[in-house]
Amino acid sequence: MKIDGTPYRSVWVDQADGWSLRIFDQTKLPWALDILRLVDEEQVAHAIRSMQVRGAPLIGAVAAYGVALALRADPGTANLDRVVAMLGETRPTAINLRWALARMRAALHNLAPSDRVAAAYAEAAAICDDDVETCRRIGEHGLPLLQDIAARKQLGERVNILTHCNAGWIATVDYGTALSPIYQAHDAGMDIHVWVDETRPRNQGAALTAWELGRHGVPHTVIADNAGGHLMQHGEVDIVIVGTDRVTSNGDVANKIGTYLKALAARDNGVPFWVALPHSTLDMTVADGVAEIPIEERSAAEITDLTGRTADGRIETIRVVAEGSPAANPAFDVTPARLVSGLITERGRCAASEAGLRALYPDKA
Amino acid sequence: MKIDGTPYRSVWVDQADGWSLRIFDQTKLPWALDILRLVDEEQVAHAIRSMQVRGAPLIGAVAAYGVALALRADPGTANLDRVVAMLGETRPTAINLRWALARMRAALHNLAPSDRVAAAYAEAAAICDDDVETCRRIGEHGLPLLQDIAARKQLGERVNILTHCNAGWIATVDYGTALSPIYQAHDAGMDIHVWVDETRPRNQGAALTAWELGRHGVPHTVIADNAGGHLMQHGEVDIVIVGTDRVTSNGDVANKIGTYLKALAARDNGVPFWVALPHSTLDMTVADGVAEIPIEERSAAEITDLTGRTADGRIETIRVVAEGSPAANPAFDVTPARLVSGLITERGRCAASEAGLRALYPDKA
Repeated sequence: MKIDGTPYRSVWVDQADGWSLRIFDQTKLPWALDILRLVDEEQVAHAIRSMQVRGAPLIGAVAAYGVALALRADPGTANLDRVVAMLGETRPTAINLRWALARMRAALHNLAPSDRVAAAYAEAAAICDDDVETCRRIGEHGLPLLQDIAARKQLGERVNILTHCNAGWIATVDYGTALSPIYQAHDAGMDIHVWVDETRPRNQGAALTAWELGRHGVPHTVIADNAGGHLMQHGEVDIVIVGTDRVTSNGDVANKIGTYLKALAARDNGVPFWVALPHSTLDMTVADGVAEIPIEERSAAEITDLTGRTADGRIETIRVVAEGSPAANPAFDVTPARLVSGLITERGRCAASEAGLRALYPDKA
Repeated sequence: MKIDGTPYRSVWVDQADGWSLRIFDQTKLPWALDILRLVDEEQVAHAIRSMQVRGAPLIGAVAAYGVALALRADPGTANLDRVVAMLGETRPTAINLRWALARMRAALHNLAPSDRVAAAYAEAAAICDDDVETCRRIGEHGLPLLQDIAARKQLGERVNILTHCNAGWIATVDYGTALSPIYQAHDAGMDIHVWVDETRPRNQGAALTAWELGRHGVPHTVIADNAGGHLMQHGEVDIVIVGTDRVTSNGDVANKIGTYLKALAARDNGVPFWVALPHSTLDMTVADGVAEIPIEERSAAEITDLTGRTADGRIETIRVVAEGSPAANPAFDVTPARLVSGLITERGRCAASEAGLRALYPDKA
């Protein structure tokens, strides 16, 4: 998508040297558009752990390039296995990370070491291109949901979509997942408006989704995570669309902490609750998401401290919790399939159930 | 309750001059314990509007003293009616404010103007003393709920209570509402632990509840508002206890924005959801809370900007939302009675229903 008129992807190979990796430092957004250069797998691991890159699809794409960078130093099989294992441990919840790394290993393992670097760059590029096309199609398949709502509106009434966290183009290589139908609806001239959950503790909604939508010109309003239920009670939300970090075989949805609360409110108010995902987010090896998906516990400092910009332009970090009080920070929760209206994938829409997923993905292991 | 060993109430008449009002500036907590002196009704109105005092019971008590301060300048009936009306408009959602002002007016209206100042101070003091006794009894009636949970625990297992916003002693004159049973359980030696919702946007949980509990020595952990559902899914919450700004005749509960989401999660996970309130929070003139209770829309700046302390001790305000993105800030929501396990009042516990309320409050208009 575009930033002030210039098209970007969220990750790319440096054009000057032809091998180093370029990403936005998403921890600096929305205050600065810092483009980082990553030259080895340790820098890639740091970028993922520190959330300079985040978003399940983007993490997978960047990790894939991390394999290519590692093989430049040593294309041997032991090093390939090492880097795949090491990068696979950088974040525990998103399944795309391990999917992308497994794809890289499968593509490279049987090649002669001398052929692996070029093949690794090609495979990582293919993962990126596939992600772009996948996200574009997710938008195509999500768009009819918004069109149906728009068709029921009176003249001058907008379609109100609520989203949580950031499942936009900067969470993927391009287009986004949950935001892809929103961008396509907006570009098609539909009168839409997005309620953006700020998404504590890291504020990916307030900082990233609002930034993305604002730069693209999509009308939106930032709200506290606490506000969505009230807005649904009063008819201000027509549909919820979120992304996901892992969907199990029975349709349970792991996503940013707080997603489950919005799904509960959606059900209580008859608001459709849809989840957008690429195939790489499916984990058919897990059935019961609440019981089986490991939930990352992140640093308490993400709760106690916040970073932002002062009125005179300084970036400051402030503590917002009483001194001496501990904090806990589970980063994801699991929304049971029973609360999910359906899944939007690059192959179409389906029920959040094993039958629904099997119908779209008979080939998925 | 005590702050570092010294007992305080949340509002008191200055001992030196015998007439001016003393409050903590709660917008400065937890970083500074600033004690403000209020000398007229305009300062009282400002303190309420700007949330230097907040919490439904405390607002009522402070407004009562605001009437006394106004009458010092002019004890006439026109001025009495004016100040009651003016202070009644400072916050729209909490019913205690209007209850306290109506009580003041009823006590003063038929007196000779020359008798009104002394009577106003006496009535405001009585409102405060009544609030302290009321909150103490709320704690007594809530305590058995915690004792029942403790009785089912294994040795070494703590009782986990989740609360939202601040319904502690600094939201009342003393003891608190939702926190009153918690203080009494802790003081009785029960092994309890409180999950403290940070309560965006104003962070009354992170800033005030955590501060109160910490100063009293009650074990607690601050969490993002998004986390409560996940904790309930995993058995980490035994009971939810919250305060309220208004309870309708059918038991609907207006409270800080986000309360409704926690009530939904509690029901989905079989966790008891209790609401603690004094009689002055009851509004028997309203039945359907979602349809009828006005919800205050506060400044967007509360969403976009946060104030806290830097590592080197400066108080800074930072913007956390992307530049140019608007924000909306409904301050309360309404939890339908069907999601409420019961009400804890100074007269005992009852169902969140007209029958339950009428049984405890046959005298309530």
